[in-house]
Amino acid sequence: MVNRKQEYFEFEAIHLDDDSQTHRYVQLEQQIRRAIVDRRLPAGSRIPSSRNLAKLLNVSRNTVLTAYDQLISEGYLKSSGGSGTRVATVLPETFEHKTAKLPAKHSSIGTEELSRVGKTLAQQADPVVLTPQKVLPFLPHVPAVDEFPIDVWNRLTNEQSRWTRKHLVLCEPIGYRPLRESIAEYMGLSRGVECSPDQVVITSSAQQSMMLLGQLLLDPGDVVWVEEPGNLPANSVLELSGAKIEGIPVDEEGLDLTAAELKRSPRMICVTPGGQWPLTMTMSLNRRLELLARAQESKSWVVEDDYNGEFRYNGRPHRSLTSLDPTGRTIYMGTFSKVLFPSIRMAFLVVPPALAEAFAMAKWLQDRGTSPLPQMVLHRFIETGNFVKHLRRMRTLYAERQRFLFEGLQEHFGKDVVVTLPESGLHLVVFGRTEKIEQRLIAAAERANVRFHLVKFYAIDPESDSSRGIILGFAAYGKKLSKRALRDWASEFHNC
Amino acid sequence: MVNRKQEYFEFEAIHLDDDSQTHRYVQLEQQIRRAIVDRRLPAGSRIPSSRNLAKLLNVSRNTVLTAYDQLISEGYLKSSGGSGTRVATVLPETFEHKTAKLPAKHSSIGTEELSRVGKTLAQQADPVVLTPQKVLPFLPHVPAVDEFPIDVWNRLTNEQSRWTRKHLVLCEPIGYRPLRESIAEYMGLSRGVECSPDQVVITSSAQQSMMLLGQLLLDPGDVVWVEEPGNLPANSVLELSGAKIEGIPVDEEGLDLTAAELKRSPRMICVTPGGQWPLTMTMSLNRRLELLARAQESKSWVVEDDYNGEFRYNGRPHRSLTSLDPTGRTIYMGTFSKVLFPSIRMAFLVVPPALAEAFAMAKWLQDRGTSPLPQMVLHRFIETGNFVKHLRRMRTLYAERQRFLFEGLQEHFGKDVVVTLPESGLHLVVFGRTEKIEQRLIAAAERANVRFHLVKFYAIDPESDSSRGIILGFAAYGKKLSKRALRDWASEFHNC
Repeated sequence: MVNRKQEYFEFEAIHLDDDSQTHRYVQLEQQIRRAIVDRRLPAGSRIPSSRNLAKLLNVSRNTVLTAYDQLISEGYLKSSGGSGTRVATVLPETFEHKTAKLPAKHSSIGTEELSRVGKTLAQQADPVVLTPQKVLPFLPHVPAVDEFPIDVWNRLTNEQSRWTRKHLVLCEPIGYRPLRESIAEYMGLSRGVECSPDQVVITSSAQQSMMLLGQLLLDPGDVVWVEEPGNLPANSVLELSGAKIEGIPVDEEGLDLTAAELKRSPRMICVTPGGQWPLTMTMSLNRRLELLARAQESKSWVVEDDYNGEFRYNGRPHRSLTSLDPTGRTIYMGTFSKVLFPSIRMAFLVVPPALAEAFAMAKWLQDRGTSPLPQMVLHRFIETGNFVKHLRRMRTLYAERQRFLFEGLQEHFGKDVVVTLPESGLHLVVFGRTEKIEQRLIAAAERANVRFHLVKFYAIDPESDSSRGIILGFAAYGKKLSKRALRDWASEFHNC
Repeated sequence: MVNRKQEYFEFEAIHLDDDSQTHRYVQLEQQIRRAIVDRRLPAGSRIPSSRNLAKLLNVSRNTVLTAYDQLISEGYLKSSGGSGTRVATVLPETFEHKTAKLPAKHSSIGTEELSRVGKTLAQQADPVVLTPQKVLPFLPHVPAVDEFPIDVWNRLTNEQSRWTRKHLVLCEPIGYRPLRESIAEYMGLSRGVECSPDQVVITSSAQQSMMLLGQLLLDPGDVVWVEEPGNLPANSVLELSGAKIEGIPVDEEGLDLTAAELKRSPRMICVTPGGQWPLTMTMSLNRRLELLARAQESKSWVVEDDYNGEFRYNGRPHRSLTSLDPTGRTIYMGTFSKVLFPSIRMAFLVVPPALAEAFAMAKWLQDRGTSPLPQMVLHRFIETGNFVKHLRRMRTLYAERQRFLFEGLQEHFGKDVVVTLPESGLHLVVFGRTEKIEQRLIAAAERANVRFHLVKFYAIDPESDSSRGIILGFAAYGKKLSKRALRDWASEFHNC
């Protein structure tokens, strides 16, 4: 409770600290305001003239006048011409009544006052995920930031930061036009997706892309088929639109539609055909065609999350699902945080032309538009050929790093593990030969300070047998780092 | 419909264009793939050996092998060792069946396939708002970008863009820590809000702040009281959480709670006490206290949208509502797009300590975090004293520009208009003496190419009499520009 002294306020007791960073007139005003709020200066009571108080406190009259003016303008004091300045009379009852029962600041506000969604999020909040920390082997989701051409990026940033006044206003909700042009061109060349810049929507992340898709394409109660295991954070964003998420199992060819045959038709189907997250297999061409036919039949949207389509270690990238779909029901989702670096905060969607304006409007309502400077730098990075060059270098490097980890795992754990050798992506999955061995592997990794994610983090049903597996990122870690981490891990594993 | 030739594909007819930007192996692969899709190369049919085709087309054998490998990996071709390479047999039925009925690209996708929310947004999408254009008098919402210290900003950007590798990963969802420290300090000094950096949540815009508040604090069906007229775009974001928006009238003291007495208790009350949007009055101290008491009684959240609290032309800024509320039910919402420049894309919330983690999690799900570079630059801008210096200069300048427009309106339109002279903010409101005169003013402004918003754009009930008024921004326009715009407007007005 607010501790309130009932004695009368004495102006003589005002102490102004000359060494304080706070101006003296602010200190003065604060002490008088506090006295009024605490009722030590009762309603209607007269306060000294500015001249007298200035003399009393040994400050300039201006200091006192400034404080009084502010308190008058806030309604604490009333100046009534001839009769001097008084504490306002309209306040007291209200004040008495209202401040008397106010508890101490913030004491009563806890997470139980959040909305249902808010409570769930509060429970899910994971400081390890939310607070950035050192990137250690084999934390997944991280590209080779050690190999990123940071000098080029800094140089382009400097070039692009010679802003003129027009840049201070410029912010297209749907994204910086030249960047959208570069992406449209790249999509045609690299992913076989013929689109115009008008169909490209720049967002701040794949999560935001998902949120826009949920908002614009899903009504409450609509069914969404997602891969199980799959992209769980994306699911929770879609659930914000009231959609009902249904996990469909995956097998070695990708999403297994036979498992979904008897289910209610979905409004949307979300897939990662270029390399299933997290189990890494590429969706077969047959499955792609089956999926498109199924979607057309039920008039479902298909969302192709191509988070790792660029990094393919056998042959060139597959043609995207979007490019196989002549109906336009497939929406392409790309991100730059995995191909370039996480803090770039940039992703994009390719949407049907007739819907582009609705996406712009939704983005405008969500955040008015993505920050323009990073968009301008990225545009130049693509335009100057640095983007393609970097991808080409990374493809070779990641293939090496993947092979190195793959072989290292076999060398250190031998028949105790089964290791995937994915055709694409920034991670692989290792399974213990038995569940018990997998548990030992996990415990050993923790003791050895080796980072990993588990497949079950991404499963709607984490207890299912198909939710086994340890996810290891390899892209960000050089041989030396990887070698040491593997050795430490193996030594913990074999020593108990 | 897809135009499909039924004649047999002839390998001799393959034409590879040497001048094309597309590699020859890609051209080759595309033509074969197209032939398979079009059924000119039937399932199971044998294709030439790479050696023979290379000879036939006069290209290297590697070119052909690369194309074949890709088509094999995509499943179009099958290599069966001794018997050479054939068109895959598992495809044809599926293909025939599935491609036959596919309509031309995108032909069938229109806005009628959007969700209910999506359809509404598609209708609201306003190219004038969404597409940036020249800032002309008296478009509101725009600060004096002509007076922004752009050289300082560019210099700080260059300094902050000397990124090292750690910056490529760094992105705290709740915001860049040093910026949150600067804001917390500034909030204490300038707005009387004592808070720790842990309570400050950086967002990409006030709209995104609102969306987080809706998501975390409102359940479907919850009632939200908003000012009428008020911040309509914020309302639509809150509606995404399923909240029921109720407009409460405002009078010369701000939100009129007597008008709300018989209504169902709200879960949230959103106000602009520092200067009502759009009608500009400051909320009186009495109303502030009444509002806080009412909120405490009904355990409602109070959202203080302090979009223009910095620009006060009589005395210093009022103490914020948040600083008057000892219970912590008031959440402070600030933005930098109006005090600095629109394309900065940065706003913030001050939230109760116990809820900060839920906000971080929600922000992480929405977009993982706001782009770090602009946050770093803004932090330096504040830390170097440039922020406070700029605010101080703008306060004087805006007071002048406001006075200039106020007097200009009276000079040109005399008794035909009533003009507000707000104590704060970047705009004023002018009313026609009669509704008919107001209509004439609007028509004349349009003919004279004078920009404005109308109060009714921001009213839930645009037909109500309290929704009259023309909103004119003054902050962005120097005397010369304003003078000419006023003259043109008046001449159109008086000449008809």
